[in-house]
Amino acid sequence: MAAWLMAVYFKGMTTAEREELVKAMIDSGERLDFSHLPGYVADKHSTGGVGDKVSLILAPLVAACGVFVPMISGRGLGHTGGTLDKLESIPGFTTALDLPTFKKVVAEVGACLIGQTEEICPADRKIYALRDVTATVSSIPLICGSIMSKKIAEGISGLVLDVKVGNGAFMTTVEEARALADTLVATGKAFGVDTVARLTNMDQPLGHAAGIWCEVREALDVLEGGGPDDLRELTLTLSADILRLARVHEPEETAAKALSGGQAREKFDEIVAAQGGDVKAMAQAGLHAPAVTVPLVAPSSGYLAAIDTYQAGLSVITAGGGRRQAGDSIDPTAGFILQAKVGDRLETGDEIGRTFGADAQKVEAAAKQLTAALTLAPEPVEPLRLLLG
Amino acid sequence: MAAWLMAVYFKGMTTAEREELVKAMIDSGERLDFSHLPGYVADKHSTGGVGDKVSLILAPLVAACGVFVPMISGRGLGHTGGTLDKLESIPGFTTALDLPTFKKVVAEVGACLIGQTEEICPADRKIYALRDVTATVSSIPLICGSIMSKKIAEGISGLVLDVKVGNGAFMTTVEEARALADTLVATGKAFGVDTVARLTNMDQPLGHAAGIWCEVREALDVLEGGGPDDLRELTLTLSADILRLARVHEPEETAAKALSGGQAREKFDEIVAAQGGDVKAMAQAGLHAPAVTVPLVAPSSGYLAAIDTYQAGLSVITAGGGRRQAGDSIDPTAGFILQAKVGDRLETGDEIGRTFGADAQKVEAAAKQLTAALTLAPEPVEPLRLLLG
Repeated sequence: MAAWLMAVYFKGMTTAEREELVKAMIDSGERLDFSHLPGYVADKHSTGGVGDKVSLILAPLVAACGVFVPMISGRGLGHTGGTLDKLESIPGFTTALDLPTFKKVVAEVGACLIGQTEEICPADRKIYALRDVTATVSSIPLICGSIMSKKIAEGISGLVLDVKVGNGAFMTTVEEARALADTLVATGKAFGVDTVARLTNMDQPLGHAAGIWCEVREALDVLEGGGPDDLRELTLTLSADILRLARVHEPEETAAKALSGGQAREKFDEIVAAQGGDVKAMAQAGLHAPAVTVPLVAPSSGYLAAIDTYQAGLSVITAGGGRRQAGDSIDPTAGFILQAKVGDRLETGDEIGRTFGADAQKVEAAAKQLTAALTLAPEPVEPLRLLLG
Repeated sequence: MAAWLMAVYFKGMTTAEREELVKAMIDSGERLDFSHLPGYVADKHSTGGVGDKVSLILAPLVAACGVFVPMISGRGLGHTGGTLDKLESIPGFTTALDLPTFKKVVAEVGACLIGQTEEICPADRKIYALRDVTATVSSIPLICGSIMSKKIAEGISGLVLDVKVGNGAFMTTVEEARALADTLVATGKAFGVDTVARLTNMDQPLGHAAGIWCEVREALDVLEGGGPDDLRELTLTLSADILRLARVHEPEETAAKALSGGQAREKFDEIVAAQGGDVKAMAQAGLHAPAVTVPLVAPSSGYLAAIDTYQAGLSVITAGGGRRQAGDSIDPTAGFILQAKVGDRLETGDEIGRTFGADAQKVEAAAKQLTAALTLAPEPVEPLRLLLG
């Protein structure tokens, strides 16, 4: 298998080979069936970025619109956060449900978010472990096999892919991201899953917050009608894409109304309660209050020209809010809020955000790392486009 | 290691990487030292062909001329025969000597022929086993690492390489063979071993005989002044190459005289005796007489235009004289004698050779396979050139 992975890494796979791989990975475990449900069944998948908490908002939002969302997510590893870790920072919330409970919550609540189970694509875990040690992670057919086998095995009819592009993403150029997106979409369709893909910008963190609890809090802000513009816009775009696949009338308006009308926020609480979470505890102001906060200050005057988003993501790990290795424990209070976006005019000493967490030394180091990730320029800089294709 | 082998298979190695590999493989075991011997120390290596029994003649021949030959050889696997298997068909002959005995025989007799030991390049055996199962055998840097590490570890000063080219060789084109030869020569020189390479024809078996005992018998024919022209010519050419490296005056004439004067034949007996072989039993007429012999008959009239030498080599295995897998036992009586060479005029029904062995069914099948490997043409065909570069 190690030799085969390396052969695929260098030689790629034909369409037929890739589909055989996905089929074999699905067939290594169980393929769920939600065809008995009285509605469309869909999911969203992101290739991973910094500050990406879209799933936390999108799942309740589209569920509030009548779409069933059986979402199997991953943990954070490397510089990107994981949906499971964020959800588990909600007191009582469990992502380790067995499949019968998972199916029941999807049917009754409309959405359920769990982690990978033994029953779904066990081959993926074994192959991924080998890819990690053989340096064959960044291969489009292998990435495709890993993502699509798990999503297809969820038993969904529709899938929206958020392929991140930029210095905080695994794909750094639009060309690479487009190649991956095309492969993912073709594979989904080959297995009878209506699949669409967006290319979205990861040359800066999505929203302002990156970390565990601060990202849940920012997702709640959006669900409550506030939150950062880019996060709200991307979530509504991807939600509308799902509603369009589900043949919902006026998908953009429907998504926007579910958010502004509070139905998405209500659905979030329903999901939390169904997965053992404490809705009241979640709403308490002091929850996961960090012991240490260090302000982020503009190091000079100028326009924010670039953010090394990979380093920004790593600064969350430095602060204690991410894993260096699978199995590491995480400080849910750690992370950063960065108010400044590329294109913003800054003056020396402006407070542009903060880093925080439980350990003063770590938070100080994270603040330095994040500040160093910012590039200022004397000339005005265009803001970044969020949607790239 | 499996993933690395596949990466090398597809991406090759730089000169520096290849030399590091060879060094690491040598350093996995012991490197012999024959610098105390009062003469030049050299060896010959062939990349493998059908009917190639040159080592059996060359080792005693150049030893008779004062060159020391510490030859570590391999077993037959695939369609090519192995020197060790042939030697072991001599009653009592052992190729499993320990290194002190090996060194002693080299010093006292001038040549010794043994198999791979635990002490010499143990990494090669492990890597080779992985190459076999990962389909990475046919990679020039990996072939180079395997051949050159073992030869350099022998402690030789000079090396002559016989790189076979043709439909019975691992390299089927002169270009491939030239690339391999250049790599092997450069590597030898980088480790202080004077290395020269010949490209020689393997579009037909070398000599007439292919099998175990029949090849030993043909080698003895050459040592006794007879035998096939091509086998004698190639052996004398490669022997002269070694003598030239050893700065022997008039190398061609010296090699020819050691053969015609009987000194090479005498040295062969000395080697046999030193390695436990029974020189008298070896000379008995009935030794390894096959139970079954099937004549080979020209299937039509015409000129012998081509021999599928790979199939001819496989016919030896069919007859019982080779291994399908490492560890298989071998029938030393099995093989073929093919008198006809490419370019010969044949008439329907001419007896052009014979297949033989212990098992009638196997020998019949081998005869069919070998006959099917012959292509006749109505127009005259040029004989093949033996030396290609």
